[in-house]
Amino acid sequence: MNPTPPADADAAPPRRGRPRSEAAERAIIEGVLRLLEEGTSIDALSIERVARVAGVGKATVYRRWPGGKDELLLAVVDALEEPPAEPAGASVRDDLVALLEWHRRVGLAKRQSAVLRTMTSHVKTHPELWRQYHDNVIEARRERLHGVLRRGVADGELRDDLDLRLLGELFTGPMLIRTVLHESHDLPAGLAEQIVDSVLDGVRARP
Amino acid sequence: MNPTPPADADAAPPRRGRPRSEAAERAIIEGVLRLLEEGTSIDALSIERVARVAGVGKATVYRRWPGGKDELLLAVVDALEEPPAEPAGASVRDDLVALLEWHRRVGLAKRQSAVLRTMTSHVKTHPELWRQYHDNVIEARRERLHGVLRRGVADGELRDDLDLRLLGELFTGPMLIRTVLHESHDLPAGLAEQIVDSVLDGVRARP
Repeated sequence: MNPTPPADADAAPPRRGRPRSEAAERAIIEGVLRLLEEGTSIDALSIERVARVAGVGKATVYRRWPGGKDELLLAVVDALEEPPAEPAGASVRDDLVALLEWHRRVGLAKRQSAVLRTMTSHVKTHPELWRQYHDNVIEARRERLHGVLRRGVADGELRDDLDLRLLGELFTGPMLIRTVLHESHDLPAGLAEQIVDSVLDGVRARP
Repeated sequence: MNPTPPADADAAPPRRGRPRSEAAERAIIEGVLRLLEEGTSIDALSIERVARVAGVGKATVYRRWPGGKDELLLAVVDALEEPPAEPAGASVRDDLVALLEWHRRVGLAKRQSAVLRTMTSHVKTHPELWRQYHDNVIEARRERLHGVLRRGVADGELRDDLDLRLLGELFTGPMLIRTVLHESHDLPAGLAEQIVDSVLDGVRARP
């Protein structure tokens, strides 16, 4: 669209010593985390305070997150959760294990991090934030899961008579019951494998 | 402890026209629901207002629910959810379907009742209430489910190599994902059967 960008677009030195683009983004997210760790409540967080702590101008924050505080909070939640495993494509079983293992690890991280717990419950209790989180983060995860399942059905590894959403929920439901609903329950190593293999093979006793 | 109750304990006419025992309990629970339906917030509910609307004395409310408002709110949630199906014992598969079908119906009821939704989210956002709800209501449900599963394992219908809690969550997880986590998702008739049969048989394609 713009074949002749200014020659110095990337070479321009940061003005007034402020970090730019990705560096600024990291500094802002770290600023939010530092304020939360120091005991600032989410309600008391302001773009102004975050900008000051991050050493950037307010305009820099709004340029990156035009939606302001809500959009910034979602970015922080996103940054706190490790990126999900990219399906390796070796076998549908192994890809499903990797996706569930990611849920297990995020669940464990949430149990250890007061900040992550605070952020998550803030998002959940604010309907508009929750809708955005759902539409962006959760939908992207579901799409990744459905990609693996579609491949499994196409390859003849998985039954083709089940609705794809239900098929996915048979795998994710038992894990999410522990990571989201009953946070006091164990998340032992090997849980992802146990769930995937049980759902694949069925729990009916076979002679 | 008191072998000689007054002979007229049950025969005494209600004084000042106030309903007694079970009738009083119903009147009190209905009083809470009426106040909530009229728009009173849960925070603004007081035992005094509830007693007035129910036509009983405050002491009657406290005699039945010594824990006061919190305990009363749990009784209201309990009264709003239909009683779960008693396992009929015909087949483990049918009992599992009946238990999941109960979750589906409560999920549907919650989608249609603003009062039930308000109550549930109040319980969830108050840790002490949630702990009580968990220890009483949810544990009783899990015990019922585990009874069915134990029978299935003993009868040789279900595999005996899986932890009972995980075995139960393989069935309940996919239903709770829709009733509790993603309330916008379908709860079609037949969902309980589909989940139970898929988990029993497994989703691996078989020749």
